[in-house]
Amino acid sequence: MVTLPTYADVEAAAARIAGVAHKTPVLTSRTADDALGASLFFKAENLQRMGAFKFRGGYNAVASLSPAQRKAGVVAYSSGNHAQAVALAAKLLGAPAVIVMPHDAPAAKVAATRGYGAEVVLYDRYTEDREAIGARLSAERGLALIPPYNHVDVIAGQGTAVKELIEEVGPLDYLFAPVGGGGLISGSALAARALSPDCRVIGVEPEAGNDAQRSLAEGRIVHIDTPKTIADGAQTQHIGDLTYAIMKRELAEIRTAADAELVEAMGFFATRMKIVVEPTGCLGLAAAKQIKDRLKGKRVGIVLSGGNVDMKRFSELLGA
Amino acid sequence: MVTLPTYADVEAAAARIAGVAHKTPVLTSRTADDALGASLFFKAENLQRMGAFKFRGGYNAVASLSPAQRKAGVVAYSSGNHAQAVALAAKLLGAPAVIVMPHDAPAAKVAATRGYGAEVVLYDRYTEDREAIGARLSAERGLALIPPYNHVDVIAGQGTAVKELIEEVGPLDYLFAPVGGGGLISGSALAARALSPDCRVIGVEPEAGNDAQRSLAEGRIVHIDTPKTIADGAQTQHIGDLTYAIMKRELAEIRTAADAELVEAMGFFATRMKIVVEPTGCLGLAAAKQIKDRLKGKRVGIVLSGGNVDMKRFSELLGA
Repeated sequence: MVTLPTYADVEAAAARIAGVAHKTPVLTSRTADDALGASLFFKAENLQRMGAFKFRGGYNAVASLSPAQRKAGVVAYSSGNHAQAVALAAKLLGAPAVIVMPHDAPAAKVAATRGYGAEVVLYDRYTEDREAIGARLSAERGLALIPPYNHVDVIAGQGTAVKELIEEVGPLDYLFAPVGGGGLISGSALAARALSPDCRVIGVEPEAGNDAQRSLAEGRIVHIDTPKTIADGAQTQHIGDLTYAIMKRELAEIRTAADAELVEAMGFFATRMKIVVEPTGCLGLAAAKQIKDRLKGKRVGIVLSGGNVDMKRFSELLGA
Repeated sequence: MVTLPTYADVEAAAARIAGVAHKTPVLTSRTADDALGASLFFKAENLQRMGAFKFRGGYNAVASLSPAQRKAGVVAYSSGNHAQAVALAAKLLGAPAVIVMPHDAPAAKVAATRGYGAEVVLYDRYTEDREAIGARLSAERGLALIPPYNHVDVIAGQGTAVKELIEEVGPLDYLFAPVGGGGLISGSALAARALSPDCRVIGVEPEAGNDAQRSLAEGRIVHIDTPKTIADGAQTQHIGDLTYAIMKRELAEIRTAADAELVEAMGFFATRMKIVVEPTGCLGLAAAKQIKDRLKGKRVGIVLSGGNVDMKRFSELLGA
């Protein structure tokens, strides 16, 4: 049996990140409300430090290490935002950091990670196994491995965003959050269950990589090839045993969104709400639009997970 | 003698717009703080309704009309954001609206104005006089003219943004805001003087259109040709007698910023702070960077006036 994090872990994480992570704003848009016939509350984690919710979990995990472990250093593998999160957390807490990143990660993310003082080790995400590389570096150099999602402290840290959201706006009828490895949706579900027990929590995956949806349907963790999608924050090959167990227990549903739907949402955020949201961060709104008939008159939370997208790529995607 | 608005008018405006305008978030960025060696507080009016601070003044002005005047309708002329502000305010308050806009205004702004139900009358800003067109429409159709800046209720409404800013973050050493016709900087100065008396208020104009700077230097309102600058919200030909008087009394300085500096700031906002800020909204940060030696260790407020920029134009400007 694995030990799952609880809402008490989310509360402990909130205390640990207080004054270090941003308490990000909750944004609203009358245009979006009118379009969906609902009251939408966007938790703007694109405005979080290093541009994504991942800072919450990364910082909570590094801050939970013993002084000796911190001094020895940490290693993390990530498609991008977790890398920056651990790199920044390590810098703030005085720990050396090695980050294993795919060679095709957005240049902005690689540059930002190096900018935080971390050593970056690149690998080929289509042929190499990042988990094996991370484990090897951990063993060889005595580094503490901070996994991107399947970790009690990481999940608990990610849950602090929805804790803040519900504490600020009150109970929700629905909550949408992206699903990559499941850290964000799991932490979000723990917070929602504690603070808004009747809230229906819906995870959203890219259509090209619906392994979590299939995992819940099949009752086992399904492994897939790295999906080809613009949602580079959700290109995971499988969820973890912790995130699987929480999703299975807590989620009302997992939906998927196609890349074209993400681009449409990204354009809406930029032109109407004046914010830069990366494709993965658009999964929630895209899914909410799919089921707007069910959302009529409801209070709906949507987690905008991040905003780390190259401006060149952003422009290309918006066809501008 | 003209009657100038006071901070009491700003307070009255704040009560009038409460629950209608967004209380926009104050954003911070460690990266920007590190770059300038100061504590920067960005008042994100790009996240205001219709994407700019102008909603505050427009709504306050239309809401201050008598019921009979509202029924007859309003007319406004504007390079863009004021047009949308009055159009939206009129819609919310049940007043017909006619908006006089330059034929080369950003397409997004014209479309948004029509989207709010207003009749749009286009004119050539290089050959025609929008004030004369506005006055004629007002006389012919019995419409109340809502000028873009030189109006007590408009100035008072614009001042509510800085009122919120200082109430949220506390006293400031410096405050930067864009100067077009001077409505925002005047209202901002009234709020700053009342809530943070020692704050040095700095207005910022596009280099190509420094009529306000020249006006204060020459002691009279200087008229210029429509300046060619990417800061389309600050392409005014002259300030007004109300805004001149307040600026003369309250401002520490007026600075200018070149288009290239605005593009650099726009890129910073998009890539690091994940927000879309229109060129005019970048004037404050551009000027702050110019005098960063004076800002060391200081608490600095910067008003991001709006985010209404076509995505095509945005991409072109960022060279992406």
